Amino acid sequence: MKATIITIGDEILIGQIVDTNSAFIAKELDGLGFQMVEILTVSDEKAAIDTALLRQLDRVDLVVITGGLGPTKDDVTKKVFCDFFGDHLIENQSVLTHVTALMERYYKRPISEVNKQQAWVPSQAHVLLNRVGTAPGMLMKKGQTYFVSLPGVPFEMKTIVVEELIPWIKKQFSGYHIVHRNIITIGIGESLLAEYLENWESSLPKGVSLAYLPSPGRVRLRLSTSGSDLEALESVLQQQINLLPDAVITYISSFEDESLEITVAKLFDKSKKTISFAESCTGGRLAQLFSSIPGSSAFFKGGIVTYATESKIDFLGVSAETIAKNSVVSEQVAVEMAQKARQKFKSDYAIATTGNAGPSKGDSNAEIGTVFIGISTPEKTFATEFFFGQPREKVVEATVLKGLELIYKEILKNV
Amino acid sequence: MKATIITIGDEILIGQIVDTNSAFIAKELDGLGFQMVEILTVSDEKAAIDTALLRQLDRVDLVVITGGLGPTKDDVTKKVFCDFFGDHLIENQSVLTHVTALMERYYKRPISEVNKQQAWVPSQAHVLLNRVGTAPGMLMKKGQTYFVSLPGVPFEMKTIVVEELIPWIKKQFSGYHIVHRNIITIGIGESLLAEYLENWESSLPKGVSLAYLPSPGRVRLRLSTSGSDLEALESVLQQQINLLPDAVITYISSFEDESLEITVAKLFDKSKKTISFAESCTGGRLAQLFSSIPGSSAFFKGGIVTYATESKIDFLGVSAETIAKNSVVSEQVAVEMAQKARQKFKSDYAIATTGNAGPSKGDSNAEIGTVFIGISTPEKTFATEFFFGQPREKVVEATVLKGLELIYKEILKNV
Repeated sequence: MKATIITIGDEILIGQIVDTNSAFIAKELDGLGFQMVEILTVSDEKAAIDTALLRQLDRVDLVVITGGLGPTKDDVTKKVFCDFFGDHLIENQSVLTHVTALMERYYKRPISEVNKQQAWVPSQAHVLLNRVGTAPGMLMKKGQTYFVSLPGVPFEMKTIVVEELIPWIKKQFSGYHIVHRNIITIGIGESLLAEYLENWESSLPKGVSLAYLPSPGRVRLRLSTSGSDLEALESVLQQQINLLPDAVITYISSFEDESLEITVAKLFDKSKKTISFAESCTGGRLAQLFSSIPGSSAFFKGGIVTYATESKIDFLGVSAETIAKNSVVSEQVAVEMAQKARQKFKSDYAIATTGNAGPSKGDSNAEIGTVFIGISTPEKTFATEFFFGQPREKVVEATVLKGLELIYKEILKNV
Repeated sequence: MKATIITIGDEILIGQIVDTNSAFIAKELDGLGFQMVEILTVSDEKAAIDTALLRQLDRVDLVVITGGLGPTKDDVTKKVFCDFFGDHLIENQSVLTHVTALMERYYKRPISEVNKQQAWVPSQAHVLLNRVGTAPGMLMKKGQTYFVSLPGVPFEMKTIVVEELIPWIKKQFSGYHIVHRNIITIGIGESLLAEYLENWESSLPKGVSLAYLPSPGRVRLRLSTSGSDLEALESVLQQQINLLPDAVITYISSFEDESLEITVAKLFDKSKKTISFAESCTGGRLAQLFSSIPGSSAFFKGGIVTYATESKIDFLGVSAETIAKNSVVSEQVAVEMAQKARQKFKSDYAIATTGNAGPSKGDSNAEIGTVFIGISTPEKTFATEFFFGQPREKVVEATVLKGLELIYKEILKNV
């Protein structure tokens, strides 16, 4: 089973927005056993859309198209989509009823002429209801290929995929599986990891492939295989994981596709310990990461972003003397920030960050790229200096990951 | 001048990571006058890469390829790239020297065999130096098309594009321009905007196109045109902007491609006022947005994420009685949070958020999707109730945008 994703929209093609829809759809289709052939973004002009659709005809089993279904003039997808099947548009009564109700409930106004157009769909289309928006999804078949057109607004697209498309796919296609196992390593580089894994990798059975996905501070190893017997496939991958060399196992933080913050969060949840943050150079990134983990209110007490030096003193309670003596980017300040966060949020653990992320220097003379991370635990408080270079985004990302790595090692001792 | 971007990597194709590289490159190429034909993601298998390269040959002027240049076995791009031009790999001395120095400086260890391979490039390639990483960029020509291969690690790719590729493009291509003007409207829906703009849009001169890009709470209008006389093009767009109907102008927050947080930040900077945040349901998103704006330390004092109810009381100083009497998701709590943030961070303005973002209820019985946003200014403090439905991510995003919209209206009065 093969699939392609087509994103329609000049705003993605000229880089005005990042295409997050394709990743979401790709992950779902991959999980359903589809081999992804390509992800394509084209302009919202008739010729470009037409060519893109035609190229997938009888080449794949399923094409998922997003974008270009809004009510305004620049959205031509529906017309091109309809023409591609030699069909004509008709007004769909259930969509019209839905759009009318939605406009009244959310916007407190009657349906406009522009909105009414959203109820027009190709006469042969199987309509996928958009419970949370006005543009419906449409499913049609030509030759051997199913084409699905979905709106581009991310939460509308996701709602239709989860509530309508996936159930339809499960009924229509079945029997073939692609299985992945993702292993997360932290604190070891891709090259060294590759050296440790050389023999193991060469001995992988036919049909099992390995991929390295490096990002700052961690490398994800992905083992993949495919076939019809799901249980047998999972067992083959587990056997290979059991054979991983010890030199690599010590660097593994998770045998599931789990980011480090999730691994850390689970350890906090399990051990009934709590955490808080005092952030300077990471500007709220740690708090935001933890607050977006479902159920985190059980262990995440809160965070303070002390962007101004005076907030570190007045609100968080770091001593003015410590800052004057050591500069705001220093081991001592990171230690005090972590201690104060732990006290004031009444948490068991705390992470503090203070650094010069660049591009220009702030209230400190520390070299740009220098960061101190403070860790406070029930047993001790300490801070470590790091140099993460430039650009700014790399410094912030590396600080967040290193902070998670440090707290991971501490909380592991108490689980 | 036409261009295509090709991203190579199974991790994007199966939805494991979002492709942010393409948006960055597309924006740069668009700014340099290239018409983007397509953005394509393919598997890191030889046949898929080969087919993708061949399809662009003599079809566009420039192809930018990212990904697949790492040192590990799953990265085959370089070999396929080299074969495509009928070339062979040679060891490049300047790359070798650079990689050796980099390994010593950052990793404090000698160059490994795996790293040495990064210095091998096609003999005919023009090498683009990767100052911040080990895999070099490579530029080659076949037929009428230039092909550039870049590493997939975002900050490495960006560094090479900015420092090496753009200067090369400016020398090689010149004379044609694509000009956009982006206008941001807030507080008006796409459909109503389209109705207000109908006559104006129908009267746009030939060669000028309009696109609507809606996201929750705001719609971006993009006017585009192209040609060789940059000044004339800019003047044509300005003329159309001058003709925009008054009914629309009142909703415009920016005549530049500027997000609302940047517009707000500029107003704070200009008026020498300061801001702080007390966040519950937005979990640090506001703080993170502001801390990532260059120069924000002049007006952004800090933020507190009071995720646990007790942090609202103990650390921020909201009265326990207010919470007990009104529930933690209430107008009164939002008001007190905003007041306390303003006091404790000693800022002129503050935004507070408290709500039930879902999917399950927290320490409050408010309906899921209910949010109160508190605003504190030198003159007054108030809070407003909103209902943003579901899913969770939409609630958080809508709360952030609505908070920015509310503070925007307040700070406007003082500029």
